[in-house]
Amino acid sequence: MIGGRDVIKVIEAMTPLYVAVGLGYGSVRWWHVFNREQCEAINRLVVYFTIPFFTFEFTSHIDPFTMNYRVIAADAISKLLTVGVLATWTWCSSSSKSSYSWAITIFSLSQLTNTLLVGAPLLDAMYGRWAQDIVVQLSVVQGIAWMALLLFALEMRKASGAAGFAPAAIVAGAGGQMVAPEPQQAMDVECNTDVAARPTLGSLMKTVWLKLALNPNIYASVLGVIWALIANRWHFEMPRIMEGSVLVMSKAGTGMSMFSMGLFMALQDKIVACGQKLSAFGMLLKFIAGPAVTTICAVAVGLRGDLLRVAIIQAALPQSISSFIFAREYGLHPDVLSTAVIFGTLVSLSVLIAYYEVLGLLS
Amino acid sequence: MIGGRDVIKVIEAMTPLYVAVGLGYGSVRWWHVFNREQCEAINRLVVYFTIPFFTFEFTSHIDPFTMNYRVIAADAISKLLTVGVLATWTWCSSSSKSSYSWAITIFSLSQLTNTLLVGAPLLDAMYGRWAQDIVVQLSVVQGIAWMALLLFALEMRKASGAAGFAPAAIVAGAGGQMVAPEPQQAMDVECNTDVAARPTLGSLMKTVWLKLALNPNIYASVLGVIWALIANRWHFEMPRIMEGSVLVMSKAGTGMSMFSMGLFMALQDKIVACGQKLSAFGMLLKFIAGPAVTTICAVAVGLRGDLLRVAIIQAALPQSISSFIFAREYGLHPDVLSTAVIFGTLVSLSVLIAYYEVLGLLS
Repeated sequence: MIGGRDVIKVIEAMTPLYVAVGLGYGSVRWWHVFNREQCEAINRLVVYFTIPFFTFEFTSHIDPFTMNYRVIAADAISKLLTVGVLATWTWCSSSSKSSYSWAITIFSLSQLTNTLLVGAPLLDAMYGRWAQDIVVQLSVVQGIAWMALLLFALEMRKASGAAGFAPAAIVAGAGGQMVAPEPQQAMDVECNTDVAARPTLGSLMKTVWLKLALNPNIYASVLGVIWALIANRWHFEMPRIMEGSVLVMSKAGTGMSMFSMGLFMALQDKIVACGQKLSAFGMLLKFIAGPAVTTICAVAVGLRGDLLRVAIIQAALPQSISSFIFAREYGLHPDVLSTAVIFGTLVSLSVLIAYYEVLGLLS
Repeated sequence: MIGGRDVIKVIEAMTPLYVAVGLGYGSVRWWHVFNREQCEAINRLVVYFTIPFFTFEFTSHIDPFTMNYRVIAADAISKLLTVGVLATWTWCSSSSKSSYSWAITIFSLSQLTNTLLVGAPLLDAMYGRWAQDIVVQLSVVQGIAWMALLLFALEMRKASGAAGFAPAAIVAGAGGQMVAPEPQQAMDVECNTDVAARPTLGSLMKTVWLKLALNPNIYASVLGVIWALIANRWHFEMPRIMEGSVLVMSKAGTGMSMFSMGLFMALQDKIVACGQKLSAFGMLLKFIAGPAVTTICAVAVGLRGDLLRVAIIQAALPQSISSFIFAREYGLHPDVLSTAVIFGTLVSLSVLIAYYEVLGLLS
């Protein structure tokens, strides 16, 4: 049973994030402190510096030898199941090109969540530090494995000429942040420009690897995991001087990222960019379908009690910002993803508290 | 006696600041992540958002009813003594206009220090939390009273037509950060444009008040002091939701400010902007003359032991960034102040450790 005190604790933990978003929004819309170019500069700062340090700080402190592999398995099975269902649907569909595009977007919406920025403080407030540790572990897997899969799927789509592709200006934008989309990029490009030379699987893999290697956030994740493996294998702590040097930048992570999200919201013409029907569809996938699949898988692998609750709530976290960045870069339903990030983040607090309350009622 | 372990602790506390400076510097000079306009945007972010929250966070947690008034008195007497000597010198000088200008700069160099960003972590590492509390108390007095005096002196000088005044683009720049100086502003303007209408003391005061009221950092200081007074008078704590909302931005303070200082350094043509002779003069005032005057005053008011040491070391902190912002805005020796900030901050770690070692030898 979740009491009023528990809910207040959650609200206390999440409100600062919304305050930072509000300051970012207000600085553009109300106080006119920043113009569009200046917002872009702040976004670069967040993408190239604060977020990678933030990710490294979290990732380097996991213990890869005592990770909760059951929760990770539940999450992985849930994602694989989704991939399987979507693949079957694409296979059977009459218009397989359009279905493939939608399959990628549906996977993004239902399975890729904002684990670190929103998930870590939220689950810490709800269930304590162990729950935060789990969500950090899931973020590492998502940040490395599932983002790579998403990128691979997007490159496949691009290579097969499924869409008119317009590369975005920011290659490294996937660090967890975004810039204001150009109007022409925000259009739903579902046309059928055929590509003359289709690349081989090898060259596709090479492109994906290169993109991953150049992405500062994935870079930080991998470095963090390597550090965590070495440190936990030979049992040593990060030297204080290194710890402090990472912290001086990573401490800016939450505030600056949410501020930057506020800037991004302020530059949009409207919060709901993709129409009410599509938005409702996105929210349904995000807050109902995704958690439902994860619940089934979590119960199936034998999770019970608070572990089960954590697995469900982490699946209902708002949209991963990186997934939006990729959508924009590849011109694949960026307006749907942008709405999922912005509107989803705004409504997520009440949705997540509802989940928290309901799950608290179940023994 | 200060051991190797103590010195390492200080180095551990200060290195992160230099890492942040280095990242800022490298992002412009080596990795070309930001151009000049983008640096300006990041500076605005620091001036308008991170630093005011950072200042508020520190200031609101002082207890105005248990402040160490003896240390504050020693500091105040030292500053008043400096003002007295400089006033006498200006009075007796043959070229009183030039002397007055230099008197302001000498006061800045010898008495205005970077209390919060550098002082707070440094003194915490050297002597513990109580020493940090003292330096925060001193920062409040400096941020409100002495900055107002400096501003008043600068407005006086401007009103008396002592210099060709070119207002800088950033009115609110005094928040603790800086932007890249335009070449024409970096020139030492010591010309003699006469002002037609000389304002009265009343209108001067009004200008000063308005500038102070519009300065986001002073705003934050005053709000912080008001909060501290109310909270400590009626014994209540800041609500967690408010505390968190301030922290989400203030935690970015140190990293973003030092990063921004790195950007500023990278945009300068050279680290020592004002010539070796003037630089040496500035360093002498900053690291020798200022602390010497403070030592005399601190001993005079009866400070002994660690309290005396803290009073001396806080006087040897690197140059206050706000003092440089004002110097640039009023075109008064901005190159001297810029060198004091940049070069002074770079060399300060070794100077301060030397002070720490020597003061540790005295019983």
